[in-house]
Amino acid sequence: MAELSRTSGVPVATIKYYLREGLLPPGRSVAATQAEYDEAHVRRLRLVRALLVVGGLSVAAARRVVETLDEAPADVAAAVGAAHDALPPPVPALAEGERPERALAAVAALGWDVDPESTGVRQLDAALAAVAEVGLPMRPERLEAYGEAAMRVADVEVRGTPTGSPADAVQYAIVGTVMYEPVMAALRRVAQQHVFRRFSREQ
Amino acid sequence: MAELSRTSGVPVATIKYYLREGLLPPGRSVAATQAEYDEAHVRRLRLVRALLVVGGLSVAAARRVVETLDEAPADVAAAVGAAHDALPPPVPALAEGERPERALAAVAALGWDVDPESTGVRQLDAALAAVAEVGLPMRPERLEAYGEAAMRVADVEVRGTPTGSPADAVQYAIVGTVMYEPVMAALRRVAQQHVFRRFSREQ
Repeated sequence: MAELSRTSGVPVATIKYYLREGLLPPGRSVAATQAEYDEAHVRRLRLVRALLVVGGLSVAAARRVVETLDEAPADVAAAVGAAHDALPPPVPALAEGERPERALAAVAALGWDVDPESTGVRQLDAALAAVAEVGLPMRPERLEAYGEAAMRVADVEVRGTPTGSPADAVQYAIVGTVMYEPVMAALRRVAQQHVFRRFSREQ
Repeated sequence: MAELSRTSGVPVATIKYYLREGLLPPGRSVAATQAEYDEAHVRRLRLVRALLVVGGLSVAAARRVVETLDEAPADVAAAVGAAHDALPPPVPALAEGERPERALAAVAALGWDVDPESTGVRQLDAALAAVAEVGLPMRPERLEAYGEAAMRVADVEVRGTPTGSPADAVQYAIVGTVMYEPVMAALRRVAQQHVFRRFSREQ
């Protein structure tokens, strides 16, 4: 464990805490007070740190993500879907017979093929309901721009996904989703700044 | 106040709480137990609800946003910048002589004109440092895709900004930033789903 701590830069006390919380699988016991940790432990430790420290996930949310990783479906698309399901924000389940109409209409307008019952679709539905509620509803030309932007980003992201094993794909999808959402959000604000400055100069 | 509650759909107790917390300016007193509220109060109430309930901001963060709105600079670009500064996530101040090198390199590669000392640039720098730390650094082809996507979105957003008064522009920028970040994040996940499903079918 001392070596795992040195390799990963994570303090021993923190590693013990992760073990207790089920965020890190136990090492292979080799003696009464010694266990062996391998490369998989180092990778898992790095992921857990990213989720908790950088992603700001709760321990419970991080545990759900890690469990998804350990039970990743063999199909990569399904595995990535499961990863998205495990990540925040939590989305409310639909009532019996309820459909995420706003999201389905948006997705149909964009011509995308998605599972209408997936978490992503429900998340989109909740976000679209929220913007409508504050009087800034998604209009067609806005949807077109947002849809193109999302597709441009998703295309690069999916092309970069390792296809060797579903577990690798899920790890990539999780880290990518958690870590790149803040990048995208920051870039959007900086882009707004650029456009506003250009406009100010032109006037 | 009863009428303001009816018009806005916000309970009287909640309105009183917002008044106490400085999130809503007091109405114009017309009698010992009566005050007049106008259209500006209804709009402000709607914004505060959006920030707290939908955006999930803390009362302190919402107060900072509202103060920005009340002291909006005359220049629209500067006003929107101030709005971004007031919004979460909080970004650490730079140490004396420290520069947000990663963000500045990214912005230079994209050819954007931004204020190197703005919150947006520091936010981008922190996000880029985080992805590098987990072993998924921003590579040039990825930056190009993300930059194009952010610009596509920012362009539509800025074109939609009301230019009548800085206060209107700031209100729009705040609501748009807080409310449309979740839309963009959800669309990105749904777009990933679409691309993955297409790939699965092709294989």
